[in-house]
Amino acid sequence: MPRPSGVRGSINPRANLPDEFVYDAWYVAAWGEEITRTPMRRVILDEPIAFYRRGDGTPAALADRCVHRAFPLSASGKLEGDQIVCGYHGFKFQPDGACTWVPGQASVPRSARVRAYPLVESGPFVWIWMGEPDAANPAAIPDHHWAYDPEWRSMKDMATVKARYALVVDNLLDLSHEAFIHAATIGSSDVAETPITTQVDGTIVRCWRHMENVPVPPSYQRTTGITTTIDRWQDIEYAVPAFYTLHVRVAPAGAGDDQAYYSKVMYALTPETARSTHDFWVISRRSGAEQPAWMTAAGIKGQNTVLGEDIAALELLERSLPADGHWQELSINNDRGGLQWRRVFRELLSAQKEVLA
Amino acid sequence: MPRPSGVRGSINPRANLPDEFVYDAWYVAAWGEEITRTPMRRVILDEPIAFYRRGDGTPAALADRCVHRAFPLSASGKLEGDQIVCGYHGFKFQPDGACTWVPGQASVPRSARVRAYPLVESGPFVWIWMGEPDAANPAAIPDHHWAYDPEWRSMKDMATVKARYALVVDNLLDLSHEAFIHAATIGSSDVAETPITTQVDGTIVRCWRHMENVPVPPSYQRTTGITTTIDRWQDIEYAVPAFYTLHVRVAPAGAGDDQAYYSKVMYALTPETARSTHDFWVISRRSGAEQPAWMTAAGIKGQNTVLGEDIAALELLERSLPADGHWQELSINNDRGGLQWRRVFRELLSAQKEVLA
Amino acid sequence: MPRPSGVRGSINPRANLPDEFVYDAWYVAAWGEEITRTPMRRVILDEPIAFYRRGDGTPAALADRCVHRAFPLSASGKLEGDQIVCGYHGFKFQPDGACTWVPGQASVPRSARVRAYPLVESGPFVWIWMGEPDAANPAAIPDHHWAYDPEWRSMKDMATVKARYALVVDNLLDLSHEAFIHAATIGSSDVAETPITTQVDGTIVRCWRHMENVPVPPSYQRTTGITTTIDRWQDIEYAVPAFYTLHVRVAPAGAGDDQAYYSKVMYALTPETARSTHDFWVISRRSGAEQPAWMTAAGIKGQNTVLGEDIAALELLERSLPADGHWQELSINNDRGGLQWRRVFRELLSAQKEVLA
Repeated sequence: MPRPSGVRGSINPRANLPDEFVYDAWYVAAWGEEITRTPMRRVILDEPIAFYRRGDGTPAALADRCVHRAFPLSASGKLEGDQIVCGYHGFKFQPDGACTWVPGQASVPRSARVRAYPLVESGPFVWIWMGEPDAANPAAIPDHHWAYDPEWRSMKDMATVKARYALVVDNLLDLSHEAFIHAATIGSSDVAETPITTQVDGTIVRCWRHMENVPVPPSYQRTTGITTTIDRWQDIEYAVPAFYTLHVRVAPAGAGDDQAYYSKVMYALTPETARSTHDFWVISRRSGAEQPAWMTAAGIKGQNTVLGEDIAALELLERSLPADGHWQELSINNDRGGLQWRRVFRELLSAQKEVLA
Repeated sequence: MPRPSGVRGSINPRANLPDEFVYDAWYVAAWGEEITRTPMRRVILDEPIAFYRRGDGTPAALADRCVHRAFPLSASGKLEGDQIVCGYHGFKFQPDGACTWVPGQASVPRSARVRAYPLVESGPFVWIWMGEPDAANPAAIPDHHWAYDPEWRSMKDMATVKARYALVVDNLLDLSHEAFIHAATIGSSDVAETPITTQVDGTIVRCWRHMENVPVPPSYQRTTGITTTIDRWQDIEYAVPAFYTLHVRVAPAGAGDDQAYYSKVMYALTPETARSTHDFWVISRRSGAEQPAWMTAAGIKGQNTVLGEDIAALELLERSLPADGHWQELSINNDRGGLQWRRVFRELLSAQKEVLA
Repeated sequence: MPRPSGVRGSINPRANLPDEFVYDAWYVAAWGEEITRTPMRRVILDEPIAFYRRGDGTPAALADRCVHRAFPLSASGKLEGDQIVCGYHGFKFQPDGACTWVPGQASVPRSARVRAYPLVESGPFVWIWMGEPDAANPAAIPDHHWAYDPEWRSMKDMATVKARYALVVDNLLDLSHEAFIHAATIGSSDVAETPITTQVDGTIVRCWRHMENVPVPPSYQRTTGITTTIDRWQDIEYAVPAFYTLHVRVAPAGAGDDQAYYSKVMYALTPETARSTHDFWVISRRSGAEQPAWMTAAGIKGQNTVLGEDIAALELLERSLPADGHWQELSINNDRGGLQWRRVFRELLSAQKEVLA
């Protein structure tokens, strides 16, 4: 099984934003329904991968590069039982990466094998392990049960953002941007003006902000029906590097937890290349309380409008950054969360380098 | 105030054409009317700059990269009085570059400051000083009074040429190309065949060519009404690196200065990136003498047709040059002016490096 | 005469596919009818070249970069007798590369000369020698007489493929891909399953495959009228680096040579850049025997359909390959021909380096 070399993904180690990939992690690779009996190509951490389903319905992921002459395995669109067939010379591979057939000879060389990636399908997500396969431990997949728990109702979508992973994470860990980027939608100056508290627990970065007796933003008014001032919690939990959950609670001011509307805003962030990022989102709401209908096409469209404001800003920023990876930065109190994820991320990068050294 | 580092703009120091920027100079950044109460982004010497006008009407220019997370300040399109507001997290900056507000905290860090560029508005031009602000001396702005003197009538336009600065300058300092590139418009073989004289005075390169008793080119016939042979002067004055003036005199052969039509063809050349150049032109004619109407839309269109011939050739040349910056060159007598500007330009580059060393 | 430097074309010497150019070779530069009295630019081995015809009809090829200021000579579209005129300042060059006129002075500097390339026009091809002109020996042009011999009837076309030369050659030397890439057109699993024999003779790589009593593919049925099983010969003769001939014989099974349909499928492969390849093809059939009409527009279209399948696959492969030039490969018995051409090609590269050292 080919293993990552020490230089893989070392894009610009001296850049002021982390510009490398963390491999030993579960990333969301796809929605379950994207993976079918027609092979699909997706690039993850700069590695092209062919996804398809076995006859028994379980997903498989192979390096999308034939061991013979590097042709993309996904290009043929062709499966034979559990095997994928290369469209150039017909090499066939099992889901474990072993080649079972080559043209023009009876025996298959023992080294004829492509990399197979461990996958776990859970809820709407198909998770992929990008590190050494032996180290893949499904228990390390971040909690995401709201996305499939029947107590919660969810909506979801994804976009591939033409901006580097670190910019996308920075954006999510400093919600003070809501008052500016989302001025036309969910913005409220209370978010920017309320101090945050941060805490690091292993590779989980938490940062929270509680606002009491603040005006209700128009979008919340629409989705919750509350017209009075509100108490509002924004608790971020970022399982570095791949999974972000925003725990939201909104309640009429002083009404307490019982009256609160709970929702979970999840983002699975998966680098595509060094300069683009797959961004899968799920929003789940506790269905116990009486709530207005919202998980409709209109709800998805609304969230994509908000996300579209972020994407436009992030892609503009990506295009504007100096090519050499160096620019001035100045951090303020609101950046505490953003600085913590970078620190944890750099620790993961260092640990990874020691292992590979 | 951040200052230029020694390597800034050192693109390919071993290339056979000068391929670096001279910073200690006044460049034309914009026409006055381009700078308004809506911030405008323009890249100059590879630096993105946000231009806008203060409440009192004077222009301001700030580095178009927020000190916080590098977002383009111009993107918000938003001013508050004399201040520009970042569209990402709301940082506010004064025209001197000082930050006056950050979200979520009362105090603004002292280092929160973006670079401010000295500007001078004069006639139709807004000039920018790209070197150390302390060294900006408006007296060093090249003479351009014809562009606003009531004795003269002017027309103007600008284009951003996808060719490196040095190619654009070479083109203007060897007018022998008129007979070939402009064969269909202003071309005349007399220009190519008349020897030039050159003289260097500090950073000003002069090269002139006087033609006596030569046929009148069709375009001159149209604009001056002269149908006999003419005496013709082409006196180039290039204030390296940024401002070029062609002093043109045309008179019926032997008629002398009194009967001459005088015009000034000015080009302000401002590198955008290492491979593109802003090209502002003004043509002024002395309005004293009886002259046919010419400074009309048709006149601008006519000049843009001629300039378009140059641009097409320069962009083709730019695309055709080897990426490594090296190719064969051979200089002839007509290149005297072209060789002088390169020499002066390289001296400015050397002086700049000594200062930065 | 400028000569190639040692580093010219050394693109990625450590790549696992040969990624450099062999210069001492005759390449097909153009069809005869492409070269006219209007200069044409074509890039060959990364060198821009201007092609045109002299007054006496013989073709000429000059470096498409004026010795003066590097302007493309072909851009003017202008010839004066046998000379090409630069569109920027009017320099004129003879077909041997010598400059005969410069503006503004009577004498032409002795060093004013662009590179002239030896050409040989033969049959439909114009061959160009890319090495030292003194070493150009027309006797080294590979046999291609079928393309113009009256005993044979031919059809032809060309395409510029956005894939590196080595991928295009690999494709042609392993015809086992027919069963997969051309499954919809000429595919037959017999090709993939019949072992090949290879032989190297100097710089000629031969590899052949004889199939006896096999089903006739639909396309052969159409072109030969044979409906029984067939005996089929595929004899590849690749004159490394530039000219490939596939000798095809098809006959009713057991009928012997007399009843065979002979055809020659020639490919002239000329690198354009490091990542694109000019691909000229000629198919010739012996016209002695009674044969169905096939050399029509429909025949050319049919062959371009097959070639289009290859081009789509090769361009996909090119886009998918890692930028660093390194990827896993595994060779099997069917790759014998492919490994032989690479070995011969690398020997030519080594010999070339010794000469230049």
